Amino acid sequence: MKNSLLLKALHCQNDSRPPVWLMRQAGRYMPQYRAIRAKHSFLEMCHTPELAAAVTRLPIQVFGFDAAILFSDILVIPEALGVGLHFDEGRGPIIERPLQTAQDIDALPEPCIEEALGFVGEAIRLLREDLTVPLIGFCGAPFTLASYMIEGGSSRDLKKTKKWLLNDPESFHRLLDKLAHCALKYMHLQAKAGVQAFQIFDSWAHVLGHAQFREFVQPYLKKMVDGFRSTGIPVILFCRGSSVFAPDLAELQSAAISIDWNGDIRQIRASLPATVALQGNLDPDILYAPEKMLKSEVRRMLRAMKGEPGYIFNLGHGIFPDVSVDAVHNLVETIKSA
Amino acid sequence: MKNSLLLKALHCQNDSRPPVWLMRQAGRYMPQYRAIRAKHSFLEMCHTPELAAAVTRLPIQVFGFDAAILFSDILVIPEALGVGLHFDEGRGPIIERPLQTAQDIDALPEPCIEEALGFVGEAIRLLREDLTVPLIGFCGAPFTLASYMIEGGSSRDLKKTKKWLLNDPESFHRLLDKLAHCALKYMHLQAKAGVQAFQIFDSWAHVLGHAQFREFVQPYLKKMVDGFRSTGIPVILFCRGSSVFAPDLAELQSAAISIDWNGDIRQIRASLPATVALQGNLDPDILYAPEKMLKSEVRRMLRAMKGEPGYIFNLGHGIFPDVSVDAVHNLVETIKSA
Repeated sequence: MKNSLLLKALHCQNDSRPPVWLMRQAGRYMPQYRAIRAKHSFLEMCHTPELAAAVTRLPIQVFGFDAAILFSDILVIPEALGVGLHFDEGRGPIIERPLQTAQDIDALPEPCIEEALGFVGEAIRLLREDLTVPLIGFCGAPFTLASYMIEGGSSRDLKKTKKWLLNDPESFHRLLDKLAHCALKYMHLQAKAGVQAFQIFDSWAHVLGHAQFREFVQPYLKKMVDGFRSTGIPVILFCRGSSVFAPDLAELQSAAISIDWNGDIRQIRASLPATVALQGNLDPDILYAPEKMLKSEVRRMLRAMKGEPGYIFNLGHGIFPDVSVDAVHNLVETIKSA
Repeated sequence: MKNSLLLKALHCQNDSRPPVWLMRQAGRYMPQYRAIRAKHSFLEMCHTPELAAAVTRLPIQVFGFDAAILFSDILVIPEALGVGLHFDEGRGPIIERPLQTAQDIDALPEPCIEEALGFVGEAIRLLREDLTVPLIGFCGAPFTLASYMIEGGSSRDLKKTKKWLLNDPESFHRLLDKLAHCALKYMHLQAKAGVQAFQIFDSWAHVLGHAQFREFVQPYLKKMVDGFRSTGIPVILFCRGSSVFAPDLAELQSAAISIDWNGDIRQIRASLPATVALQGNLDPDILYAPEKMLKSEVRRMLRAMKGEPGYIFNLGHGIFPDVSVDAVHNLVETIKSA
């Protein structure tokens, strides 16, 4: 497995084609996923190791991606913290008891992550029995988790979260600290169960200004990256906004940074230390393009990153649920035949 | 007027404190605005020169901003193109007959902008009679206007627009070309009527990847900046995404670039030619912060840009409708007393 394209690229030692996987690759765009989903709720799929493992395997079996990412959701940590979670068709995740006051933060329990999220460890162990590609574990980052716990679900602009951090930064820091603590425990749970790489998702960091990023995002990601270093498992940092925040992320010395689709990844490559691998950054909408344009855009990305020993092909964000399966086949084939 | 702080800063020759104005400064957060709005529809206010002029003057009278920006809306160009426009309380702008096919694009009329948008020229002439600060004219940029005409209104991710440009880039370019043509005529109408600076809003450019920005945004902004250069009126380019796209915008040699709130404006300053002025980039949410934090954030921005002869204080995006008037007073006073 150490010779897998993904792990070689994460160590900036890949002398072959770049590995490819997609964020949310085990998802609704796959008919095989929808068939399982028709019989189980989304959370049930997350909570049941056999189902989570089966869904994780699907895109490897169908498309031949170079890595699997555990099927789960970043909100299992808030769920473990007792704020109540369900998924509403159409509206997405709902936090049933969103945080409203500093007292709500201080009243959060100290959950036993190993117990509360043991089902994730079990899914990982099942997967490691037969997966032939590296398994990527993941979790949400403190800022993004905090935003869901405050907004109560998806939100366009995280207005409540921004108002909170501006009006009461102290309690917001306490929340981030609690979440970083839980997330790090959760990372170690996944490491112990057998993940071979790890991605941290700070999907909502792009709502922040630069100084806010350095105050409310960077220190907590650092805590997690540093606290996980002893495992030797390479960490990928993803946030929307990474086209802007890449230099700040690079200071954290994770194995890799996943770049959103705004920036020119070639220019970003040139601006960062050669020791950090890069992942990304095809516009997820390009999977809606006709075959010819999709292939030419994939090839353009491959040319831009040609010969880079630390490059992982991915989208700039998760794959959309209404993308065609053919487009994904075309993407993977274009990379594998390059 | 040539000695106004704004025009000196736009020519990178300001040796005093930075000028300050805010995008959407004549807006719903002002009780005086709401009083006028209670009696007239938003479009009626745009269409009636006396009302538009009165509303434009309000924030100068109340807060003492260093520049006025014409009260209007970027969608008057689509309106002139006959696609039908109204504003729906809560939902925002509605394009009544959105573009659905390439034929719809080719069927767009060639409006006489001077006639269709003559009311804007009239408002500008009224304002120039008594305004004591420079008047900034503005228009929407082709990509952003196209996106409203295709989506039919506000949209979170411009999915239809992205699919269109990926599946039929030729007709999308024809649309952008038509819009650039109209926008440039509109810019000259405003120049003739007397605006002393001009801002182009490409508010939705941040949904694009870097190569898409260079294909669908940059050339049309260039056409407008180049076609307006003969007037000698300085142009400010604004887009969300400018923290990433600033070097691409700088190639267009406009007088100034307005930076969104993600990037560190000091770092962006260092990366661009000294001949381009910068505007921005306080996080608009900071106006929700308590007085002490608001003031310290404003002072931090002032320190970062201290001594910059080409710097204009502004937010990274428009001011929100629910901001308190006190916060705006505090912001302006902090800058004026720095």
